Amino acid sequence: MTQNIYDDPDFYAGYSQLPRSVTGLDGAPEWPALRSLLPALVGLRVLDLGCGYGWFCRWAREQGAAQVLGLDVSEKMLARAQEFGVDAEITYERADLETFDLPAASFDVAYSSLTLHYIKDVATFFGKIHRALVAGGRFVFSTEHPIYMAPSRPAWSAGDDGREVWPLDHYLAEGPRTTDWLATGVVKHHRTLGTTLNALIRTGFTVNHVEEWGPSVEQVAAKPQWARERERPMFLLIAADR
Amino acid sequence: MTQNIYDDPDFYAGYSQLPRSVTGLDGAPEWPALRSLLPALVGLRVLDLGCGYGWFCRWAREQGAAQVLGLDVSEKMLARAQEFGVDAEITYERADLETFDLPAASFDVAYSSLTLHYIKDVATFFGKIHRALVAGGRFVFSTEHPIYMAPSRPAWSAGDDGREVWPLDHYLAEGPRTTDWLATGVVKHHRTLGTTLNALIRTGFTVNHVEEWGPSVEQVAAKPQWARERERPMFLLIAADR
Repeated sequence: MTQNIYDDPDFYAGYSQLPRSVTGLDGAPEWPALRSLLPALVGLRVLDLGCGYGWFCRWAREQGAAQVLGLDVSEKMLARAQEFGVDAEITYERADLETFDLPAASFDVAYSSLTLHYIKDVATFFGKIHRALVAGGRFVFSTEHPIYMAPSRPAWSAGDDGREVWPLDHYLAEGPRTTDWLATGVVKHHRTLGTTLNALIRTGFTVNHVEEWGPSVEQVAAKPQWARERERPMFLLIAADR
Repeated sequence: MTQNIYDDPDFYAGYSQLPRSVTGLDGAPEWPALRSLLPALVGLRVLDLGCGYGWFCRWAREQGAAQVLGLDVSEKMLARAQEFGVDAEITYERADLETFDLPAASFDVAYSSLTLHYIKDVATFFGKIHRALVAGGRFVFSTEHPIYMAPSRPAWSAGDDGREVWPLDHYLAEGPRTTDWLATGVVKHHRTLGTTLNALIRTGFTVNHVEEWGPSVEQVAAKPQWARERERPMFLLIAADR
């Protein structure tokens, strides 16, 4: 089973204070780039894997999605999602994303934001999503970038000339990474970008877009403290077609 | 025009002494991985972009390729390629890979080893290769990995705890990188992995395999001095289908 870190009291307390938790999609700087990979949702059946507070599920309905299913392992997050009000066309279900099951060809769009790095077995995960999508369906997801996840000490450090650098190592050593972010002992699964793409391709997806995300020049102008996020990509955004 | 660094006397003198220059394909540790992306070449028309000494062109003929065209900007390297002997089905032509031209649908396989990082305009480069391939044709290439090319100081350095790390920065700042490798002022063009993949996809290619190459565990066992090459990928190997 996936580590259910979101129900850890320390993690939940910290996570619930993040801009993306408080203000929703617009609190996530990568959201405009991720949104641009989605088709128009009018009339479509949408799946959200790792839906958290349900911000995306509700947004999809605002865009005209016919039905939305949000899956998450966290009881606390699903309970909070329900508090935003009832929409008969949004269903939230608790699910372990290593072992969930979905009916075949039942969704037009699958979406997953910053969840993949908690999944150990991506081949199985991608396979289930491929099966759940109709032919021509689209899968859009974000994940922590492997450059961000790989290092033994994932923190900015001073390079030989005093400039701040990202001290990359262990990139080709795939496997779990344990960090202390919001809580101690958060387990994520590092894979190279090639491994993620090849798993998609072997599953039957056609890769349509790969974005190694950092804030845009305009975003840095508005928030200069983000400048160093352009030194190495923090997130990876991918669109693939069934 | 592409910088013709291979005809620089210092660069050529150094390059001609590298294992891959002296012993050919088997002197390149990434060759087994790159070779595995190629189809059986029997009876096929093969294009080699950046053919150098012609090692791959001759190997392709040994594998049964019907015809091979090798293009390179370096007069010195093409002259050396010719010295290996005459094969009526191998043609070497001098060409600037920013401005070359090829007939449409005239090749079954296109191959390019460690050449793409010298190309500034990859969209045009990929477009010409796409046009030159038949439907169903395959394009296999290697390039320096953007993680390897990006840094302002691309050399191993000591991290905060004394471990050797790769000091990554400037990853999202695409553009020329000037280094002193074999000669001073060698210009390469840094692009993110996403940019390279999206250029292929927008051209009409289907990405089939992406490998962020480092030596295998077996290769490191045989050559322990390669161990640190698993800390970050040096090369990027891609197979794409027209």
